[in-house]
Amino acid sequence: MSSGKIYMIPIPIAENAIQASIPMEVQKQTTELRYFIVENIKTARRYLRQIDKNFPIDDSTFFILDKRTPPEKFQKYLEVVLDGNNCGVMSEAGCPGVADPGAQIVKLAQEKNIQVIPLVGPSSILLALMASGFDGQQFTFHGYAPYDKKELKSFLNRIASQTKFGTQIFMDTPYRNQKLLDACLENLNDNDLLCVALNINGSDEMIKTQTVKNWKKNHFQFKEKQPAMFLIGR
Amino acid sequence: MSSGKIYMIPIPIAENAIQASIPMEVQKQTTELRYFIVENIKTARRYLRQIDKNFPIDDSTFFILDKRTPPEKFQKYLEVVLDGNNCGVMSEAGCPGVADPGAQIVKLAQEKNIQVIPLVGPSSILLALMASGFDGQQFTFHGYAPYDKKELKSFLNRIASQTKFGTQIFMDTPYRNQKLLDACLENLNDNDLLCVALNINGSDEMIKTQTVKNWKKNHFQFKEKQPAMFLIGR
Repeated sequence: MSSGKIYMIPIPIAENAIQASIPMEVQKQTTELRYFIVENIKTARRYLRQIDKNFPIDDSTFFILDKRTPPEKFQKYLEVVLDGNNCGVMSEAGCPGVADPGAQIVKLAQEKNIQVIPLVGPSSILLALMASGFDGQQFTFHGYAPYDKKELKSFLNRIASQTKFGTQIFMDTPYRNQKLLDACLENLNDNDLLCVALNINGSDEMIKTQTVKNWKKNHFQFKEKQPAMFLIGR
Repeated sequence: MSSGKIYMIPIPIAENAIQASIPMEVQKQTTELRYFIVENIKTARRYLRQIDKNFPIDDSTFFILDKRTPPEKFQKYLEVVLDGNNCGVMSEAGCPGVADPGAQIVKLAQEKNIQVIPLVGPSSILLALMASGFDGQQFTFHGYAPYDKKELKSFLNRIASQTKFGTQIFMDTPYRNQKLLDACLENLNDNDLLCVALNINGSDEMIKTQTVKNWKKNHFQFKEKQPAMFLIGR
């Protein structure tokens, strides 16, 4: 029997954004699957019911993939694929494998010559970059900014000096966004350009690029739980 | 009168991939526009007719945005937006502003406090990363690899030593892909992992991660004009 395929399935990053962020054909390909490797079973099931209210949840198999999943489990998940079944990988929001779990299972799949098919959907990194006005010919995504205040300061100083090599993109968990913005305003130069992209794809999306001086003037305050991307560029 | 908005509109990166790569709502938002800033008028018009065969091309205005467009023209394009008209920005394929023209006009729009809305669509950079199995928590896109043989060698050696800081992504124009792959196989270590992502979203998509040693064994040959992304990672 020939091996199945792995589908990397993006999930909307905002409420009520399915038709605005997931192509029809991707929704169809998703509902044809019966095996899923998912970051969160509850959100995965909810999403499947949203795109097909008759989706046969009870006839489907869900494997868990999060930070605590021991790597030896991946081997077991992939046996299902090697047995000929197609399998979808879904994170909680956005593109699996990018700033989200999923890469390790794909790495193993690649080693086993399983075909991996990436489906189109929303990435807050790319969407923020597109709307920032910054250099999109070269860019670096740094993931989460350091938590420690001193390390954060040196991180910000270092990446601000590298904008000539491309746009510098980073983030933090939503409840630390205000602290991260404050650290940017404290450590960057007044003329540095900073973009904050907030609630991308949401009804209250805000993507704003301005100098640090102007961010200071505006006294911008995050509301609770707003996901955001930060970009420094030129 | 209040200002219009700029919509950053992604275009399919493969033939016959509209429903697989452009969300319905994005198609709808696109056909509601009558002003466009485009990299190539012919492909832009063709795309608009593909998503709406009755699209009023003759009642629409197209501004050119390519490498030769003098920046002073951008100012003029944005006057239409400041006058209250929404305007779409489209490159030839993929996401405008990312490895494609568009960023400069967005930069100016941000300076003028025009709202810029990024729409969801295909990015070969992100799709390649999702399917590579490489670290997606941190990555750098370098754009085009250097043309000069000596510079290319030192570029490859440098980025191969930086995979601990994240996945290294680069590309070249399709007709130089074979030369770039050969340079990778010549300059990287046998155990380095190289991913080549070919014809993403196309019917003959191939995304393969393997060691340099295995790439050498397989004697992989590009066909003509196949767009590709190259990734080095771990």
